[in-house]
Amino acid sequence: MTMNASVPGALSAAPSAFSYVADPAVAYIAANDFDRPTLVISRAKVAAQYDELSAGLGQAHIHYAVKSNPAPEVIRTLVRKGSGFDCASRGEIELCLAQGAKPSDISFGNTIKRAADIAFAHSVGITLFAADCEAELEKIARHAPGARVYIRLIVENSLADWPLSRKFGCAESLLPSLLDLARDLGLVAYGLSFHVGSQTRKPEFWIPVLDQVAPLWHAARAAGHDLQLLNIGGGFPAYYGQSIEAPRRYAASVVRAVAARFGSVPHLMAEPGRGLVAEAGHIAAEVLLVSRKSADDLHRWVYLDIGRFSGLAETEGEAIRYQLTTPHDGEETGPCVLAGPSCDSVDILYEKRPVQLPVSLRDGDKVMIRCCGAYTSSYSSVGFNGFPPLDVIVL
Amino acid sequence: MTMNASVPGALSAAPSAFSYVADPAVAYIAANDFDRPTLVISRAKVAAQYDELSAGLGQAHIHYAVKSNPAPEVIRTLVRKGSGFDCASRGEIELCLAQGAKPSDISFGNTIKRAADIAFAHSVGITLFAADCEAELEKIARHAPGARVYIRLIVENSLADWPLSRKFGCAESLLPSLLDLARDLGLVAYGLSFHVGSQTRKPEFWIPVLDQVAPLWHAARAAGHDLQLLNIGGGFPAYYGQSIEAPRRYAASVVRAVAARFGSVPHLMAEPGRGLVAEAGHIAAEVLLVSRKSADDLHRWVYLDIGRFSGLAETEGEAIRYQLTTPHDGEETGPCVLAGPSCDSVDILYEKRPVQLPVSLRDGDKVMIRCCGAYTSSYSSVGFNGFPPLDVIVL
Repeated sequence: MTMNASVPGALSAAPSAFSYVADPAVAYIAANDFDRPTLVISRAKVAAQYDELSAGLGQAHIHYAVKSNPAPEVIRTLVRKGSGFDCASRGEIELCLAQGAKPSDISFGNTIKRAADIAFAHSVGITLFAADCEAELEKIARHAPGARVYIRLIVENSLADWPLSRKFGCAESLLPSLLDLARDLGLVAYGLSFHVGSQTRKPEFWIPVLDQVAPLWHAARAAGHDLQLLNIGGGFPAYYGQSIEAPRRYAASVVRAVAARFGSVPHLMAEPGRGLVAEAGHIAAEVLLVSRKSADDLHRWVYLDIGRFSGLAETEGEAIRYQLTTPHDGEETGPCVLAGPSCDSVDILYEKRPVQLPVSLRDGDKVMIRCCGAYTSSYSSVGFNGFPPLDVIVL
Repeated sequence: MTMNASVPGALSAAPSAFSYVADPAVAYIAANDFDRPTLVISRAKVAAQYDELSAGLGQAHIHYAVKSNPAPEVIRTLVRKGSGFDCASRGEIELCLAQGAKPSDISFGNTIKRAADIAFAHSVGITLFAADCEAELEKIARHAPGARVYIRLIVENSLADWPLSRKFGCAESLLPSLLDLARDLGLVAYGLSFHVGSQTRKPEFWIPVLDQVAPLWHAARAAGHDLQLLNIGGGFPAYYGQSIEAPRRYAASVVRAVAARFGSVPHLMAEPGRGLVAEAGHIAAEVLLVSRKSADDLHRWVYLDIGRFSGLAETEGEAIRYQLTTPHDGEETGPCVLAGPSCDSVDILYEKRPVQLPVSLRDGDKVMIRCCGAYTSSYSSVGFNGFPPLDVIVL
């Protein structure tokens, strides 16, 4: 393809943590042709990002959110780095164990677990589980007796780009009774967790959430629960065109804010997913069609060979705005609606806020969709419309 | 499982076309246990529905929208019935050919095609293609010289439950120049197509759309284009709890309305997907958790082992409202938020309009999600959160 791997225009807009010049995935995409959409992800970039986040997090231990990218090579890289793993299902637990993770490094962080999967986790030696209600505690007590549990709280006032719903967590009013119930069921009431929302771009956005949770932590300890674990969840951002702080500095800011409110926490845990792998991967894609709906249409429609059902699910509601590199960057641009290739009318990536793309863009042009290492390959459909799932190449 | 296959309460609410008593998929789900969400689909029901729609459509030939359910056994059943096939990609074309479809029975109906896929379709003998813009016509002329093309129009005023966006089709102002261009490129300007929107519950909802398209059809013929094909697309509804007309009567109403406006059309084509397969399949699922977020929460949260990323994608925006059968039907009910099992906050099925479910519903209860034969298995992710793709059993 004809793209220039150094992309000087894009470089100047990117933060220091995201350098095209030294990016193996960019170089690979520039040097190769692809006959279908392909995510190219660099283990070296994942490892480097782990080191940066770890340095910033200090005492806090990383439990990688496996759901963000479950490529076995990524898991193995993180096992070697000493990472822990936040797993959502039996499938993710089996994946991590197969890549060499120890059961003691795995938490079963989904608050909605199949009873048989709890029993499986217990049987392989996993002892740390999330819960947010009575029925889940009862399931855990039955199928993983004596386990350590942490209670997930609903937090308000999320300032994240991908804020979380009320799906996970309990209201703070429920916390005391759940901690008591855990103890009464023979479980270890081990700690608390929360999530500030995915893609929380600024560390100061954590403050209102920490201010909400810290009094609950102290009250629970005062009530006799010897809490050991504070799981601060994810939210660590990736670069999608809007400036973010470098990961080490961001993580250090968050940990300082935690320490100021919680004091000394025996076990501090963070669960980055997006913040760890998103910038390590890019998607090689192709323009299938450029058209206007009428002679006086203000926007062009640009259709790619990848869409919401083949990897770019996080464009729902236009929440995550991926950046594109094209062979015509630097030339005159105009507004475009960007859409996927399927015969599904909701398979539109950006319409309310059109994207600026070169006016010379044509069908057959190769493009690169940047920072796609998280929440792409695993979201891909099995083959909607007969398009194969997103291909993945790990460098 | 303990569900009663005859489900008398649900029966009385269902239209005549949807009978639980004679439904092999219901009987199979009632008689078996499943360790993961499973779509059970009955070929006999697909064949019966094909017969009903065909009888109503009269001269109009069915081209099944393969994307709605690409199970090979379903395709083979429809090949034997004499159906044609509307394909969205090379993958779907290969699937249909492998199941015995003739190239002459296949249309390449996606208006957004990879050039190499057009060439492939041409090489295997497919001669009918959709287009809605100049660039696509040029691609078709280059890679499938001499092909028959039909131009897709944007239609307004959709009254469908799943209305279509402006993604597909051209404004009517563009139609004359596109027909001229097709002819000038050596293609056969063969006809027009449109789509009233998926799940168009009443045949009278077609009227405004037919009123819009008919004058364009007559004008194009008056301008010298010997149009042969009118492709009226899909939109044929399935039963999701709201009353619909029986398929034969619905199809006959539509064809009568077409004839009144278009007169004698040499080739009339319809592309049912949902209307052909949705009612033939049901999903066996399980309740993983029932909880409240606080002691005074007005709704319970019911979490299933299937959600938006493992088959129920059409719950986006709460558009398609699936009906549930539980072991406690007939008992007292209360309002529930219904959500999927993944650690993704958007994986919520119904929250704005909660569903009424029995108050005795508990984790571990088996449930049946009804009329899921369309747009479920193919939408399923490859394994988001480590959950396997939706399993499919074809009876």
